[in-house]
Amino acid sequence: MTQNIAILGASGYTGAELVRLIATHPSMKIVALSGDRKAGMAMAEVFPHLRHLDLPKLTTIDEIDFATIDLAFAALPHAMSQEMINGLPKTLKVVDLSADFRLRDPAAYEKWYGKAHAAVEMQKEAVYGLTEFYRDDIRSARLVAGTGCNAAAVQFALRPLIEAALIDLDDIICDLKNGASGAGRSLKENMLFSERSEDAMAYSAGGKHRHLGEFDQEFSKLAGRKVEIMFTPHLIPVNRGILASCYVKGDAEAIHAALAARYEKEPFIVTLPYGQTPGIGHVQGSNFCHIGVVGDRVAGRAMVVSAIDNLNKGSSGQAIQNANLMLGLDETSGLMLAPVFP
Amino acid sequence: MTQNIAILGASGYTGAELVRLIATHPSMKIVALSGDRKAGMAMAEVFPHLRHLDLPKLTTIDEIDFATIDLAFAALPHAMSQEMINGLPKTLKVVDLSADFRLRDPAAYEKWYGKAHAAVEMQKEAVYGLTEFYRDDIRSARLVAGTGCNAAAVQFALRPLIEAALIDLDDIICDLKNGASGAGRSLKENMLFSERSEDAMAYSAGGKHRHLGEFDQEFSKLAGRKVEIMFTPHLIPVNRGILASCYVKGDAEAIHAALAARYEKEPFIVTLPYGQTPGIGHVQGSNFCHIGVVGDRVAGRAMVVSAIDNLNKGSSGQAIQNANLMLGLDETSGLMLAPVFP
Amino acid sequence: MTQNIAILGASGYTGAELVRLIATHPSMKIVALSGDRKAGMAMAEVFPHLRHLDLPKLTTIDEIDFATIDLAFAALPHAMSQEMINGLPKTLKVVDLSADFRLRDPAAYEKWYGKAHAAVEMQKEAVYGLTEFYRDDIRSARLVAGTGCNAAAVQFALRPLIEAALIDLDDIICDLKNGASGAGRSLKENMLFSERSEDAMAYSAGGKHRHLGEFDQEFSKLAGRKVEIMFTPHLIPVNRGILASCYVKGDAEAIHAALAARYEKEPFIVTLPYGQTPGIGHVQGSNFCHIGVVGDRVAGRAMVVSAIDNLNKGSSGQAIQNANLMLGLDETSGLMLAPVFP
Amino acid sequence: MTQNIAILGASGYTGAELVRLIATHPSMKIVALSGDRKAGMAMAEVFPHLRHLDLPKLTTIDEIDFATIDLAFAALPHAMSQEMINGLPKTLKVVDLSADFRLRDPAAYEKWYGKAHAAVEMQKEAVYGLTEFYRDDIRSARLVAGTGCNAAAVQFALRPLIEAALIDLDDIICDLKNGASGAGRSLKENMLFSERSEDAMAYSAGGKHRHLGEFDQEFSKLAGRKVEIMFTPHLIPVNRGILASCYVKGDAEAIHAALAARYEKEPFIVTLPYGQTPGIGHVQGSNFCHIGVVGDRVAGRAMVVSAIDNLNKGSSGQAIQNANLMLGLDETSGLMLAPVFP
Repeated sequence: MTQNIAILGASGYTGAELVRLIATHPSMKIVALSGDRKAGMAMAEVFPHLRHLDLPKLTTIDEIDFATIDLAFAALPHAMSQEMINGLPKTLKVVDLSADFRLRDPAAYEKWYGKAHAAVEMQKEAVYGLTEFYRDDIRSARLVAGTGCNAAAVQFALRPLIEAALIDLDDIICDLKNGASGAGRSLKENMLFSERSEDAMAYSAGGKHRHLGEFDQEFSKLAGRKVEIMFTPHLIPVNRGILASCYVKGDAEAIHAALAARYEKEPFIVTLPYGQTPGIGHVQGSNFCHIGVVGDRVAGRAMVVSAIDNLNKGSSGQAIQNANLMLGLDETSGLMLAPVFP
Repeated sequence: MTQNIAILGASGYTGAELVRLIATHPSMKIVALSGDRKAGMAMAEVFPHLRHLDLPKLTTIDEIDFATIDLAFAALPHAMSQEMINGLPKTLKVVDLSADFRLRDPAAYEKWYGKAHAAVEMQKEAVYGLTEFYRDDIRSARLVAGTGCNAAAVQFALRPLIEAALIDLDDIICDLKNGASGAGRSLKENMLFSERSEDAMAYSAGGKHRHLGEFDQEFSKLAGRKVEIMFTPHLIPVNRGILASCYVKGDAEAIHAALAARYEKEPFIVTLPYGQTPGIGHVQGSNFCHIGVVGDRVAGRAMVVSAIDNLNKGSSGQAIQNANLMLGLDETSGLMLAPVFP
Repeated sequence: MTQNIAILGASGYTGAELVRLIATHPSMKIVALSGDRKAGMAMAEVFPHLRHLDLPKLTTIDEIDFATIDLAFAALPHAMSQEMINGLPKTLKVVDLSADFRLRDPAAYEKWYGKAHAAVEMQKEAVYGLTEFYRDDIRSARLVAGTGCNAAAVQFALRPLIEAALIDLDDIICDLKNGASGAGRSLKENMLFSERSEDAMAYSAGGKHRHLGEFDQEFSKLAGRKVEIMFTPHLIPVNRGILASCYVKGDAEAIHAALAARYEKEPFIVTLPYGQTPGIGHVQGSNFCHIGVVGDRVAGRAMVVSAIDNLNKGSSGQAIQNANLMLGLDETSGLMLAPVFP
Repeated sequence: MTQNIAILGASGYTGAELVRLIATHPSMKIVALSGDRKAGMAMAEVFPHLRHLDLPKLTTIDEIDFATIDLAFAALPHAMSQEMINGLPKTLKVVDLSADFRLRDPAAYEKWYGKAHAAVEMQKEAVYGLTEFYRDDIRSARLVAGTGCNAAAVQFALRPLIEAALIDLDDIICDLKNGASGAGRSLKENMLFSERSEDAMAYSAGGKHRHLGEFDQEFSKLAGRKVEIMFTPHLIPVNRGILASCYVKGDAEAIHAALAARYEKEPFIVTLPYGQTPGIGHVQGSNFCHIGVVGDRVAGRAMVVSAIDNLNKGSSGQAIQNANLMLGLDETSGLMLAPVFP
């Protein structure tokens, strides 16, 4: 049975990626697209690469009749999302791609996002959308909070290791290399082609990045104690992709074995043979995550590297994977597209 | 019913693109992959982005039992292809992605490729694989010759105009901007990242590019007289894509109208609104072709611009489109993947 | 003797390029930098790559004491430039990098720039800054108007051919491939990294680009009759550089000979051996222009290709070359930096 | 007085960078260029961006009359370099850019390079070419061994901290982002544009990279005890540049103060204000190194980030800086070229 889908905030990159993926999804049909500043425009004007599709025009959110909608994806800016979703029918299934419902604790939200949450009750209700680890909760959830893209990449690499106490919890260093699309389509001088091309630099260095709120919440819960990792993203000149190089203390082969075992049956998580590491180019355009483990010459040290596409597995692909579960569809439906290389 | 597919020469970029597309094709199954120099290797070793797929190992061509194959794609190097295909069972359906069977005339082949053709009978039998213009012949063909990627991009822009005599046949200038994947995976100094990045330059300038053989054949046949275009490709630092800027003499609005009418029902060819031109980024990763027309300030001059993905619509996507026809499948089967942007 | 230099509008890319070049210029010293929106900031904050230099802070233009200045470079936005320059002391030597003083005819200015010129007298006084062709006028000029970057690239390729009537004046087609820095540092959605990377597309197609005003003026003057070329720039994903592919009708070898003769003694213009074409990567970061000529297989047709760095030879390098002449310095002073490859 | 310079192995990227820099060096003149496989060719054929220079043809090394040479740069492949240099007159000043003379200990050489050293006596005589730390030795040296490019980037970040015992010597993790030119001009499938563009991946992971030999030698000597860092380079799609993100345990402000003090008078090393980190784009094309320090939210942790151009400060610029000292010239001579941005 076809599910009627609305995408709120369809004029950004994650919105476009949702449309791209749903375009070949066998059971979803887009019946409403909102984009406040571009309301009235055809999607083809905003994203010419979607021109071949027969899509509804962009409208304001108010114009959408949610009675006809089975599930809404909210790809709205942070902070705006909680207010919008709070105003939707309380029976509507929602997958939120913003940061607004990722943190369970209102105080943690306020710490990382600098203001009080405007929908605290919903914040508590929301399920954290890391599918491979919250699958059952997501299946029965009404509101799922998509994870941060960096948060997804790093958790795939580390969760089984933290859970099994295979690594030193006080010495986890994650150095990420990030594609430019993660910054979205908004206008910032440092995101111009001429600024980003032929450059690489750290950003939000020193433990300032908001995805740390997710790491603290999830890793501390898993470990049953406070865990604080070092995490530094770096902008590199690729469009899509996150390569997370995680430096840990532990036995490299045991680490590899734990990851391989944990992900053996996961359809989207691929553990590489021991000693190999993944590349961004091997997952671009797809919902796959590749993970590799290498032992260091220094005994007891290892590097765990994961690669995802930030717009897909890190955001819109994950959102559809969750929506599939919420709608009773096959979890992989519409998501088996192979990576695009070169 | 599932069709059993063999890919000969699967270790190059067009081979990998065939695998990527067939991975989500509802009616094709890859049962054999050859790659002489890499025979014995798993596809995941040669192309890690295909690691999630359950694929046969690379073998030599000799190891393939063609009795079990419904259709073979030959993604072999030029010149080698004709010999290999000549040695296959004469009943086997074959889509050849090389240049070997594009030209009908043995003399023309010898002129452009510098040696006599080794399978002249088959050369005559082969159908030129520009689907939108040879659809009926392809449906009943046993051997289809995939077009050159540049040849496809330019013909989509110009065929309806030449056929309808809407443009001056003696003044057609085509300036192409080409992604690096068109050069394949073979090792050439000028294709290193450091040489191609931050550069743009013409190649095969002065009427030396072999795809001119296809233009001469097709355009002269269409026009019923000799037509020789100027055609110059330029390497630009993108992975995939061809942007063909065609400068013609004729009435721009009539040109636009003719293209819009001709492609109105084509599933993969999109004519943009008059005055708009396409971008490579709007077709990357897909089997779509976008075409735009702009009139010049100089009366009687127009620019027709087409954009395709060279590995997809320009090669492997086209090949599957043709195979769909040859196998009695829906022509668009497996090919409606939306472009990947950004 | 050291010349005191002011740069008005130093917070854009051409301003930064002026500073970069003057940093190793033996006879120029920067004593004032203006940048209205960034007044009060250190140049190192606006352009960290210039951090090693001892530079004055950015100020407003009003704060500059022009009595101490030998020459001012105006790297201001179009339209603003004419007003600012009109307000400067009439004895001050000025090299303007904007479009404001390129066109001699007020009507032409109004046609291409959509408003009446605000300093018509100065417009008449200004000398067109294409150094190699206006050298003597520039030497004694007070106000020199830097050319458009595209205008420079194409004129180097075509002026000697138009002047010597070696090509058909009614059939000149120029297809340009342009780096992103030509769009400056201002915020535009289509100039974001994610939009420009992996893309190529025409812009200002159909004879709408403002540099056509310069071509019309200069080529018509040279030919003694009206000359209107077709000229279409295309954005490609490189930072710097213009590759101008000019399709002309004429004898290719005669064309090559004329260019080689004309530029034999020019320090910055290099004519390649016949049959070779230049690449952007071979002039990036420098004040050099490479020009190549190839004859087509179609008799009487040729391609002339020129390559320059738009920020350097196309703008700031040209400006310094002109300033050298105006200040009585060696024309090449500070400009012999070799291209940066790879 | 002009110094006569020979460049051995001038057909690679570091050779070309030497020529580029010497082109505007006030006291050096290139009188001989060797390139065995390209002997007989003009430099303009091998590197068209150097076409404007009046350079000797490429010859074999045997053809060079070393009696006329004041200093030779050897930009030869590893292993070949030691044999070639061993055969040169023992009075000739030589700056070697290969890895052959970096390690003092023959056993360490054999460990990292897999074969016995062929010129052990010279190996002992050679001075390690990290100018800022071996300045006096270099001034009187006959043979200087250029450092590895990664080795330079990391040592600038860490040497003052190791020397002053400001960081935990057992917990140093260096994650590098590297431009493609570091791999040289040799043909490797993984260095093709289509493979490197839109990708990022670790290489020589797990403590296998040969530059570790330099780190072990230098850091252990500095600390007076064995020091083994974790060091992992990652290929990113930029031409030039290394960004070294070094994760250390220590007091961030003390670390910053130590670096700022140490480099205050160094002409090429710039310490950024506390809390800022550098970008590759801010040093590209130059001999500068930018270093930044950020304290982490986890107390006692800091990140020290350095950025250099691998071909310039990491190789050819460093080589000229050393040559300047060896020849009694001003150390900065010819090297004050500002970075090229954008």
